[in-house]
Amino acid sequence: MKELHSGVCAPKGFRAGGIWCGIKADSRKRDLALIYSERPCVPAAMFTTNAVKGASLLVTREHVAAGSLHAIVANSGNANTCTGDAGVEAARRTAALIADEFAVSPKSVAVASTGVIGVPLPMSAIESEISSLADSLCGDAAGHNAALEAIMTTDTRKKDGAIEIDLSGVPVRIGAMTKGSGMIHPNMATMLCFITTDADVSREMLEKALRRAVGHSFNRLTVDGDMSTNDMTLILANGAAGNPPVTTENEDFTVFSDALESLCISLARKMARDGEGATRLLTVAVRGAKDEICAETLAKSVAASSLMKAAIFGADANWGRALCALGYAGVDFDPEKVDVSFASRAGSVLVCKDSHAAQFSEEEAKRILSEEEVEINIDLTGGASGAAVVWGCDLTYEYIKINGEYRS
Amino acid sequence: MKELHSGVCAPKGFRAGGIWCGIKADSRKRDLALIYSERPCVPAAMFTTNAVKGASLLVTREHVAAGSLHAIVANSGNANTCTGDAGVEAARRTAALIADEFAVSPKSVAVASTGVIGVPLPMSAIESEISSLADSLCGDAAGHNAALEAIMTTDTRKKDGAIEIDLSGVPVRIGAMTKGSGMIHPNMATMLCFITTDADVSREMLEKALRRAVGHSFNRLTVDGDMSTNDMTLILANGAAGNPPVTTENEDFTVFSDALESLCISLARKMARDGEGATRLLTVAVRGAKDEICAETLAKSVAASSLMKAAIFGADANWGRALCALGYAGVDFDPEKVDVSFASRAGSVLVCKDSHAAQFSEEEAKRILSEEEVEINIDLTGGASGAAVVWGCDLTYEYIKINGEYRS
Repeated sequence: MKELHSGVCAPKGFRAGGIWCGIKADSRKRDLALIYSERPCVPAAMFTTNAVKGASLLVTREHVAAGSLHAIVANSGNANTCTGDAGVEAARRTAALIADEFAVSPKSVAVASTGVIGVPLPMSAIESEISSLADSLCGDAAGHNAALEAIMTTDTRKKDGAIEIDLSGVPVRIGAMTKGSGMIHPNMATMLCFITTDADVSREMLEKALRRAVGHSFNRLTVDGDMSTNDMTLILANGAAGNPPVTTENEDFTVFSDALESLCISLARKMARDGEGATRLLTVAVRGAKDEICAETLAKSVAASSLMKAAIFGADANWGRALCALGYAGVDFDPEKVDVSFASRAGSVLVCKDSHAAQFSEEEAKRILSEEEVEINIDLTGGASGAAVVWGCDLTYEYIKINGEYRS
Repeated sequence: MKELHSGVCAPKGFRAGGIWCGIKADSRKRDLALIYSERPCVPAAMFTTNAVKGASLLVTREHVAAGSLHAIVANSGNANTCTGDAGVEAARRTAALIADEFAVSPKSVAVASTGVIGVPLPMSAIESEISSLADSLCGDAAGHNAALEAIMTTDTRKKDGAIEIDLSGVPVRIGAMTKGSGMIHPNMATMLCFITTDADVSREMLEKALRRAVGHSFNRLTVDGDMSTNDMTLILANGAAGNPPVTTENEDFTVFSDALESLCISLARKMARDGEGATRLLTVAVRGAKDEICAETLAKSVAASSLMKAAIFGADANWGRALCALGYAGVDFDPEKVDVSFASRAGSVLVCKDSHAAQFSEEEAKRILSEEEVEINIDLTGGASGAAVVWGCDLTYEYIKINGEYRS
């Protein structure tokens, strides 16, 4: 597996671009993105489970179901949610405008939106700049970066990646970009993730690989427990690499699926690290649970606890909060048999043994927890094999600042 | 219903006291409380559902089950949780020490603890001061206040109350104290609530009344979504008022039960207002849900949303976050038919009609949300009758400060 550097433009046949069209007030901030493949793509997607759904999501779900996509058009600064029939109309119109530019079917254009809820999408801004958007496309890192910038809201870092793998001797690429830093919680809260690949993969296999990858990455991510109305992860496979088509769960499928998962995990970690106001990436690993689902539920309960997150911000080895969060996770385990250790590149320290305080140096624990990436490792010791890793971040002053004044 | 001012000492025959024994480092802060009734009391209690349970809770559950209590002894500064068999032994020993002082059965003494998890309870401090604690008892507001101070941790306000009602012509009193400001979430997270009454009520009726009162008050309270290992609400009824015994769901039961509920609701509101770092009391009311449970679930989802709470801190009329939180509550409702208004004593403003932005003045909304007590009123409009009110608070810089450095 080789790392590449042009994100969604790394796979053959994809171009991307991004411009400012006037949805965001600040003209230095791009707000409209496009990813395009001349070759039609097999799509697969996963969407938010929030009952309140953004209009763009409703339209994209329909277009993905139709089976063949050429493009993704996405705006930031406005979620086009709680905007009723007019919102759905706006999403359809945006897809149609892109379709016109490239003489493809409107149903081959996916639409995504992120930003404030309840404000009508300013269609005139989009309409008047749609040609500039099409013109902005290019097939290198610059195109990728422009598109990525155009989907960012409170994000402070670029979260992207691209890799090359080998399927039956043919080099194949996967590239991705994500946005999302607040309102992130399983499952898939305010995040957009666009993935491109030049692999030749059947729809069924693409869906299977995506479901697995998302289940082990974005769905194990928690920033603030809120789940957005607009989340989507969308992958387009255009087959330009010319590999033998992956249509069954053969060896090529495993290689592809593993690569996709590892790319998504690296993005999930980047998103956690860029959690709104976050100063630390928190990894919570649970082992010894009855099964993987139980382990995941327990780990998420710890990673999502406001008290635990605030303690991590303070580099305070308050392991009692981890036990407390395990206790209310609603999962069966022996509360008398829990081992907890904190770790980072500065070392590892066992702070709780058999649910009792272990002898440890507070000073050493503080040093370990003061690193930018910290781990809470929880062993339920009973010998069961259920294990899972989830990602989160600390809860900080900056989170409050960002979200107390989001619309200002 | 008349308001009284001496809390748990308002009902006849109850005395209370509180001292510093050395569990807290600061000798100006009381850390050991006692409530005592010479007459044996009928008890009823509700405990945390956290799988990790404090040692004192395990012991108290056993003593309540035994059926007759004289006293509650409670310490702050140490939760006596994750302390294993030695912790249970310490809780039993504390009960026995009090029992010795008053020549009653150890099983007639309830024990409660709140504070840091995982640190052994310093029994020698408790032992050496147990007589002073017994000596501190007095039957007026001073005794109540001393006991109340001794159960407080990060609390910044006293949360107590007492009322007098009339049962078949006989005046009867109910008094209460609570502690708890962080780690509060349904059901009953780090809170202690001790209630006394001189009513003559059967165990069965007392349990029924308590369950109803807690269900409509403390279990509708959310501060940070964390549920503690040590929560308990405990009521003692000593019968000293001499009312006709309440043994069935007669009219007296209704009066008693309603009074208890209203007292608990007033305490729940005080706890929300004193949520760690809180600057505002947030009330979320949902109506038009399928049933009361659905309404409660939806309201809690909004009140517990970190994004909504941060917006309330910023007095930002970001109603989209309310819709978003409704959407992930996991309850069936029509996401296209939601009305939302914000209210306070400064007025009321409809901000969302049929899930769309209503025309409203941002300035007016900000003025309304800048009050110390604010309401989010949500109407699902379909005409169904399920309604519920829950309480929470805003999420602030101060919350982070308190919980980033709790053990420091």
